[in-house]
Amino acid sequence: MSEVVSGVVAFVVGPEAAAMPRIARAPRLTQAAGELLRDVDIVNERGERQAICLPQERPLTISLNGHELVTLMTLGAAPELLVLGYLFNQRLITRATTVESIAVSWEAAFGIARVTAACDFVRIPDAAPVPDAAPFPGRVAPAALGCGQGATYLALMGDIDSITLPPTEAARITQATLLQVLDTVSRHDDIHRVAGSVHSCALFQDAALWIAIEDVGRHNALDTITGWMLLHGVAGGDKTLFTTGRLSAEMVIKAAMSGIPILVSRNGVTALGYDIARRLTMTLFGRAAKGRYLCYAGAERFDPA
Amino acid sequence: MSEVVSGVVAFVVGPEAAAMPRIARAPRLTQAAGELLRDVDIVNERGERQAICLPQERPLTISLNGHELVTLMTLGAAPELLVLGYLFNQRLITRATTVESIAVSWEAAFGIARVTAACDFVRIPDAAPVPDAAPFPGRVAPAALGCGQGATYLALMGDIDSITLPPTEAARITQATLLQVLDTVSRHDDIHRVAGSVHSCALFQDAALWIAIEDVGRHNALDTITGWMLLHGVAGGDKTLFTTGRLSAEMVIKAAMSGIPILVSRNGVTALGYDIARRLTMTLFGRAAKGRYLCYAGAERFDPA
Repeated sequence: MSEVVSGVVAFVVGPEAAAMPRIARAPRLTQAAGELLRDVDIVNERGERQAICLPQERPLTISLNGHELVTLMTLGAAPELLVLGYLFNQRLITRATTVESIAVSWEAAFGIARVTAACDFVRIPDAAPVPDAAPFPGRVAPAALGCGQGATYLALMGDIDSITLPPTEAARITQATLLQVLDTVSRHDDIHRVAGSVHSCALFQDAALWIAIEDVGRHNALDTITGWMLLHGVAGGDKTLFTTGRLSAEMVIKAAMSGIPILVSRNGVTALGYDIARRLTMTLFGRAAKGRYLCYAGAERFDPA
Repeated sequence: MSEVVSGVVAFVVGPEAAAMPRIARAPRLTQAAGELLRDVDIVNERGERQAICLPQERPLTISLNGHELVTLMTLGAAPELLVLGYLFNQRLITRATTVESIAVSWEAAFGIARVTAACDFVRIPDAAPVPDAAPFPGRVAPAALGCGQGATYLALMGDIDSITLPPTEAARITQATLLQVLDTVSRHDDIHRVAGSVHSCALFQDAALWIAIEDVGRHNALDTITGWMLLHGVAGGDKTLFTTGRLSAEMVIKAAMSGIPILVSRNGVTALGYDIARRLTMTLFGRAAKGRYLCYAGAERFDPA
């Protein structure tokens, strides 16, 4: 626990979300959140020593039925939901009930997420078996080779034609709601405020915050939202997703795979993200903060004041 | 070409860098930079239509001796250098001369980088062969499965003990130089300024800008710097690397693998990035902009005013 700050929360569950039951035959999950912050002494531009917080970043290796799949780098606030959402967003599973359990344990310098699942994966990775109690692995799994950059694109684009979002007259957002969303998220970025170096994602129904999560990468944060939605059988058609991250192609497709028609980013939009949103009739707001925003795509879902 | 703005440059080569010859037996590279920007019409918060620019984002599939390796999402300003640096930073090659050629070609919606190389890869990925003229692939290569998140960590950590940086008395930075670096980078972020949604990296020797690159992800930008250094046999021991991105573990290790002892980020530092920097005697500046900065680690290389 940080001695510089306390009471910091990286995973927020609002009252509506807390009331949602899990789906029948939901996977069994541990609750292995790690410490979020570490205090260090640094020197500022005036030459003064000061104590500040850094966000934790830990390798979390996913072992899928005993096969090493990939290693994610995560803050670790909700690792089980991250893993569940990751499997879905990589199109390795199409529903949560495929997974029987996710057991996360942290050693000093790394974590392992042991996933047991029925054998109906959409795509089986070509991964090498590792001993169940393997220490921090020194070798590289095939699936881990090409990572750190956005190669989920091909997996996601293969399924894009299966996505149907609600019609524009059924799923809409007003300017008042959008401004409330922006006001709310500015109060739920604890880690960013005290330590920086994280992105956040938050799920809203109208102006009500359902869940918010911070992590060291924007993809992790979105995957965690996806994992929570799968676990509770929550559909995205009446939801709005906020993210601090860029709306790149993969972020837009991941939101669409969860059925979410409206995306709001504090950051900008890439040309490919824009193209995909238009193709799927999604609404994208970017550069959204402090009462300002740009509606990049899908203005037909938006009711300005 | 954007009609909204012109003269935008995403890859800057300074005079010292332009004078550097390529190494003997350097790989043959195409020069297949793509268009960087696209104009779109959006609606702002006052309900007004306005034309703005978006950064391009294109899938670039790396085919290694005819085997599909991975698909990167890139702005496309210097794709050959990106691919060369990617191969090195993934520890698939240990020097540029392993690669005979990198030929990038762009189709409408995607690119392919055909890499021919001698068969002395450090690690051979378990990739499936694809036809050389394959269209946009619908299936997923094994190496592409676990991507979009930071799984290069294991590959990089395996080599961390081979890294030796210059002693702290030999590679240093003064406050005056640091402030000049920050001033210079603020004038070389063309894409960010007109379109947002990109990160940049820049390589300096003292206060002289050698190269600067913008891309849709911080890892791409750093990999491109690495590729340029490999192609010109430039050592990192007397260099400083600036990035707009977070100094996560992988970013710190990648810079160290190129021998760079001093890192400056406009953003923050994760706890693991901090730990690795301390282990390697690297100097990390974060939250660095407009005359302000924090020295997170390695203050012994820093000469304040």
